[in-house]
Amino acid sequence: MQNTITKLFNIKYPIIQAGMIWVSGYKLASAVSNAGGLGLIGAGSMYPDVLREHIQKCKKATDKPFGVNIPLFYPDLNEILQIIVEEGVKIVFTSAGNPKLYTSFLQEKSITVVHVVSSVKFALKAQEAGVDAIVAEGFEAGGHNGKEETTTFTLLPMVNEIKTIPLIAAGGIATGRGMLAAMVLGADGVQIGSRFVASEESSAHINFKRSVVETEDGGTDLTLKELIPVRLIKNNFYNQIQDLYKQKPSVDQLNDLLGRARAKKGMFEGDLEEGELEIGQVAGLIHQIKPAFKIIEEIIAEFIKVKKEVNIIEF
Amino acid sequence: MQNTITKLFNIKYPIIQAGMIWVSGYKLASAVSNAGGLGLIGAGSMYPDVLREHIQKCKKATDKPFGVNIPLFYPDLNEILQIIVEEGVKIVFTSAGNPKLYTSFLQEKSITVVHVVSSVKFALKAQEAGVDAIVAEGFEAGGHNGKEETTTFTLLPMVNEIKTIPLIAAGGIATGRGMLAAMVLGADGVQIGSRFVASEESSAHINFKRSVVETEDGGTDLTLKELIPVRLIKNNFYNQIQDLYKQKPSVDQLNDLLGRARAKKGMFEGDLEEGELEIGQVAGLIHQIKPAFKIIEEIIAEFIKVKKEVNIIEF
Repeated sequence: MQNTITKLFNIKYPIIQAGMIWVSGYKLASAVSNAGGLGLIGAGSMYPDVLREHIQKCKKATDKPFGVNIPLFYPDLNEILQIIVEEGVKIVFTSAGNPKLYTSFLQEKSITVVHVVSSVKFALKAQEAGVDAIVAEGFEAGGHNGKEETTTFTLLPMVNEIKTIPLIAAGGIATGRGMLAAMVLGADGVQIGSRFVASEESSAHINFKRSVVETEDGGTDLTLKELIPVRLIKNNFYNQIQDLYKQKPSVDQLNDLLGRARAKKGMFEGDLEEGELEIGQVAGLIHQIKPAFKIIEEIIAEFIKVKKEVNIIEF
Repeated sequence: MQNTITKLFNIKYPIIQAGMIWVSGYKLASAVSNAGGLGLIGAGSMYPDVLREHIQKCKKATDKPFGVNIPLFYPDLNEILQIIVEEGVKIVFTSAGNPKLYTSFLQEKSITVVHVVSSVKFALKAQEAGVDAIVAEGFEAGGHNGKEETTTFTLLPMVNEIKTIPLIAAGGIATGRGMLAAMVLGADGVQIGSRFVASEESSAHINFKRSVVETEDGGTDLTLKELIPVRLIKNNFYNQIQDLYKQKPSVDQLNDLLGRARAKKGMFEGDLEEGELEIGQVAGLIHQIKPAFKIIEEIIAEFIKVKKEVNIIEF
């Protein structure tokens, strides 16, 4: 198969592994790229030196294309961009900021730039900024999320109506069914996060991986909307947030409770009680920890099977 | 086409028009049934005598199957059920209550019973209660909504994993793309609400219909979660709710602001300032008021077109 996404990144399948803090280092990114998808190193939780090391190791672990995801509120942003250029990274996904600021800088260095958006308005802004593709991410996605709360099912066809560049779907996709549905709704490819958290190669702590597998429908919530909305597993830390909400807290009080390094504590160190566990609603469909290549193999097999099933529907 | 849903209701297309308060009387229901879908009269906003009149008029307006939607918190529920039986209604959709209470009573009268759920847990309960089919409705749907906030994209495949009876998708569906995506995700048919609000035959006030057409991405919100969560257009009344939230209101204060007959005022009387305007996120995809038969025609045409487009994807 060749489509706008496989051509843009020179990959086999239009499947992108989301760049996720504390989860997607070079091991996961290279495993996904070796399996025919596009692996992304998540720079958001890495000091500049750590990121450089992961890029270098990724280049050794795969000869296939891979990329780096950079949240644009990153404190050492200029240093990070310098490393990206120096190490010859060819693909950058940016999120959570203004795509106008760095898109041309990166493109002038022959880097393909993709920006993540949560609404039609931001999709239009990203297109205006000249990015090469858009990721449209729905309300059901894990981690940080948009304020409009538009779901994948409605966001994709709305962005499809205005898009002039390739569109990648994110939020709620973990299976071949989901991938096919996203493409039916107008996407050219998919970005998958939660399912790769529960992969053998992810850097997530084994406790967190098991917790993802155990999470069922209704087991996550989008909370801390007064700060940056974030979708979390409803663990003890989440319950503390809910208790605080009953006291009608100020933004400062919410920030104090959140504190620092909660995500590292939960997702990397495996503290399921006090840590922040970012995952999507689709965790309810994830039942086993598997190697990344197996995940991709299963997604493609289900995609083909379901495509055949729906193709026989006639009116 | 014949599948479990078209066979269950003896209809041409597996498209159900949602029973909606102040919107779906006999005119809309009969128009949808005549066009090959299943029309539902929304009993939730009708006094018993009014409902009887709509059922009688619907029988005259179509010789095709149609049904009635009953919210199970309806105050005159026993009277309503009596009318359903007396008038020989063959299909009942129940929502917002315990399906164990009335399913066998209705089925003993040879009535097909379908229950609307918002989570896997409630889908299992509806199956246990012996209903003939389930509607699984996602977070993006207009009007009253579940507390789990599970979206259509993730709810459908999760319910698909546990279902033993036919599954109807609701929430976010307004087009052929949406219908095909829902069936890819595991649904056997679709229930469509918002798009039929903006139909010529709906009883919605013309102001409300125009307001639906004008609503864009981000134009709705799920609010009043302390009462029954409801998705509304962000109009002046919605802004009053948001202002009240800033004062950290009690449940009583929220109830006082909501008051009575807000939905009638907005949706039926066309007061776009003070009325409650219940609509789904998919309003952002609805661009024109059309006759019901035309809406169904367009949905089927797009379904067939997109099915062909995705069928050529090969790996």
